Amino acid sequence: MKRSIFTLTLLAFLSFNSLAQADASRMEQRISKLAEFGWSDTGSQRVAFSEQDLAARNYFIGLMKAAGLEVKIDFAGNIIGTREGRINSLPPIMFGSHLDTVPNGGMYDGIVGSVGALEVVEILNKQKLQTNHPIEVIVFSDEEGGLTGSRALIGKLGPDALKVKSHSGKTIAEGIRFLGGDPERLFEIKRKRGSIKAFLELHIEQGGILEAEKLQIGIVEGIVGIEWWDVKIEGFANHAGTTPMKGRRDAVLAGSKFALAVNEIANSIEGNHVATVGRFRAEPGAPNVIPGKADLSLEIRDLSKEKIWSIFRLIEEKAKQIEKETGTKITFEYVDVGAKPAVSDESITSLIKTSVESLSYSYKFMPSGAGHDAQDMAQITQMGMIFVPSRGGISHSPREFTSAEQMARGANVLFATILALDKTDQ
Amino acid sequence: MKRSIFTLTLLAFLSFNSLAQADASRMEQRISKLAEFGWSDTGSQRVAFSEQDLAARNYFIGLMKAAGLEVKIDFAGNIIGTREGRINSLPPIMFGSHLDTVPNGGMYDGIVGSVGALEVVEILNKQKLQTNHPIEVIVFSDEEGGLTGSRALIGKLGPDALKVKSHSGKTIAEGIRFLGGDPERLFEIKRKRGSIKAFLELHIEQGGILEAEKLQIGIVEGIVGIEWWDVKIEGFANHAGTTPMKGRRDAVLAGSKFALAVNEIANSIEGNHVATVGRFRAEPGAPNVIPGKADLSLEIRDLSKEKIWSIFRLIEEKAKQIEKETGTKITFEYVDVGAKPAVSDESITSLIKTSVESLSYSYKFMPSGAGHDAQDMAQITQMGMIFVPSRGGISHSPREFTSAEQMARGANVLFATILALDKTDQ
Repeated sequence: MKRSIFTLTLLAFLSFNSLAQADASRMEQRISKLAEFGWSDTGSQRVAFSEQDLAARNYFIGLMKAAGLEVKIDFAGNIIGTREGRINSLPPIMFGSHLDTVPNGGMYDGIVGSVGALEVVEILNKQKLQTNHPIEVIVFSDEEGGLTGSRALIGKLGPDALKVKSHSGKTIAEGIRFLGGDPERLFEIKRKRGSIKAFLELHIEQGGILEAEKLQIGIVEGIVGIEWWDVKIEGFANHAGTTPMKGRRDAVLAGSKFALAVNEIANSIEGNHVATVGRFRAEPGAPNVIPGKADLSLEIRDLSKEKIWSIFRLIEEKAKQIEKETGTKITFEYVDVGAKPAVSDESITSLIKTSVESLSYSYKFMPSGAGHDAQDMAQITQMGMIFVPSRGGISHSPREFTSAEQMARGANVLFATILALDKTDQ
Repeated sequence: MKRSIFTLTLLAFLSFNSLAQADASRMEQRISKLAEFGWSDTGSQRVAFSEQDLAARNYFIGLMKAAGLEVKIDFAGNIIGTREGRINSLPPIMFGSHLDTVPNGGMYDGIVGSVGALEVVEILNKQKLQTNHPIEVIVFSDEEGGLTGSRALIGKLGPDALKVKSHSGKTIAEGIRFLGGDPERLFEIKRKRGSIKAFLELHIEQGGILEAEKLQIGIVEGIVGIEWWDVKIEGFANHAGTTPMKGRRDAVLAGSKFALAVNEIANSIEGNHVATVGRFRAEPGAPNVIPGKADLSLEIRDLSKEKIWSIFRLIEEKAKQIEKETGTKITFEYVDVGAKPAVSDESITSLIKTSVESLSYSYKFMPSGAGHDAQDMAQITQMGMIFVPSRGGISHSPREFTSAEQMARGANVLFATILALDKTDQ
């Protein structure tokens, strides 16, 4: 089948690009309305499982139903709206995002993808189009708290995760029940490999690359893997007045050299990887004591796990040199955050590219530096993601912003990609 | 009078050096006995105003009385043991130190100076010597908690300081009462300028310079002044995954450059000054967030206030460059810690030098990087300090160590200096 994708999509896009007419002002109105649920002086407090989360979901369910979707809430609290396909034996095409926010969050992260998914249905309705595959618009539960909804869908939400207390004050299990799910029946909703045609997610970039390069669409090559280390530096705490500069084994000095080395090494290598020292805490931390200990974090992200580890090896080597220079001991403790790279399906990114080109939008291929439900879905189906610009690269902040036109372009690409994808089984 | 000091001391030392016979093993026994009061697995817990502090003081009062001193506790809780002089109209020569320790402290800080002061009396007794000036051996109360006893003696222990809660759990006022003082009558014990001939303090170095240079005695040129700044670095907190390396305004990166610059600038200038970044705390401090803020401390110590500020100006200038390189804002908030440099009296350091040379000990002139009661006393009288080596430069730790021979040398220098000083009014 795949052999004929390109011929088919070429034909398809000649007609699709004229049909892709997302309504920018409708999208923006819905974004504004959704922002009302949980807005505060310091941004959105619509954390998963809160009253505000429930209210926003109910508002959205109303919109889904009004668009003719058959809506249900699964046992994980995911909202799934189904639109029948012409051939019901075909696996559904699934797309969507989430509505919950981080504390002090913004109006766009997750919401653009949810409203954009619904917009695709609106366009299909307006154009009176029926796809061959059934369509499932999904709003995942508790994305920000640990990809809860998608993790359940792929059968990987274990009992330990259910006990975790969420920002709402409820445990994940309590939260799922609050949304109408049933944490004891999660095994029933697990989707098998092959049971979904593909999963697509529209999302704001959450970075500043598209804006800086004046591009309209990001075609996501994959979601980066993340590796963490706790970095402990041990020097010797001593009197800051009586210990001459020369005899010191200063953990802040060693930590500072380390943080600069991480930055220099990351900058000296070509690619989209990032390396961050986010935590730096000196002990005892008093102005009049030479710090004997420092507790730092090291995070490296890249689409290639091998590259992450090759960068780490360079940092580790440099750390040995810093140990000698500063008379300190630097140890790395690996922290498994379970974030393996999730590579987008090449046939999907290729369809997105053709869609974008047929719509004459500017674009670039790029990794997603942030995690998304799409990374879970990649474990059971073909996955693809579409990015639209974020102003100033700001995310998880009330200052997040993506314009109506930008999100409409994203919805148009999502629409065109879905139609093209729908034809690939013919 | 001062014109004749050198001639007199030269004559004096010819006889004094043979009389200076501190008993090293007696001193060590007393140090060991005192260490028993409040010793624990993690060092001495004999914090000021604790039961252990009181018990140690009572033991020491016993020794003072046995040495023929007339002992009283003043209204600040200072123990003062008086030995009559031949000419009672002359102002007393005062010397001593303290017996309280920091939490998890050692056996020598303060104790060597107290035991050494008593040893001077023991030698005087053994040699049947009477000085012209009355002698006052003093054990200051609560040195470690803020030079409480000496501050009261110079009339600068204010009502705010009395309310401060000490490590003992008691306020300073309650602590003073516990020791037998009366915080409401402090004004009665204030010593006026000219009412004390001179103040001398023997102390462990609390640094590693004498040991490293294989020297026996440190002649203290003065107690360094201390200046503190809170250093606030403001960058921009952002997603560590989606923000490329280039666009970052990373407060840890700026803080690291700052800490290294402080070290480099301090090392590039000749002298005994020290500069320390003891606090380094990144915010929010999560491994997956580019730190938007960092909170650092800067401390600079030197005998010259002008030099401290000239070093600070260099650091401040460098900070402006770091701001530009990292896209951050660095602000300095001055913290007045009230630690002005206290310079030793030149005639006293000169007497100490002659004493040391007459005893054929090796020595060097050096600043005291740590604070001492002597710095308060310098405000009302001629002050001088004598240092003996600290093993490994370790202080405020159960690992503090000064050998019996080293402390006996210190007591001999104190003895010889006092005898020489006693002659300067003739």
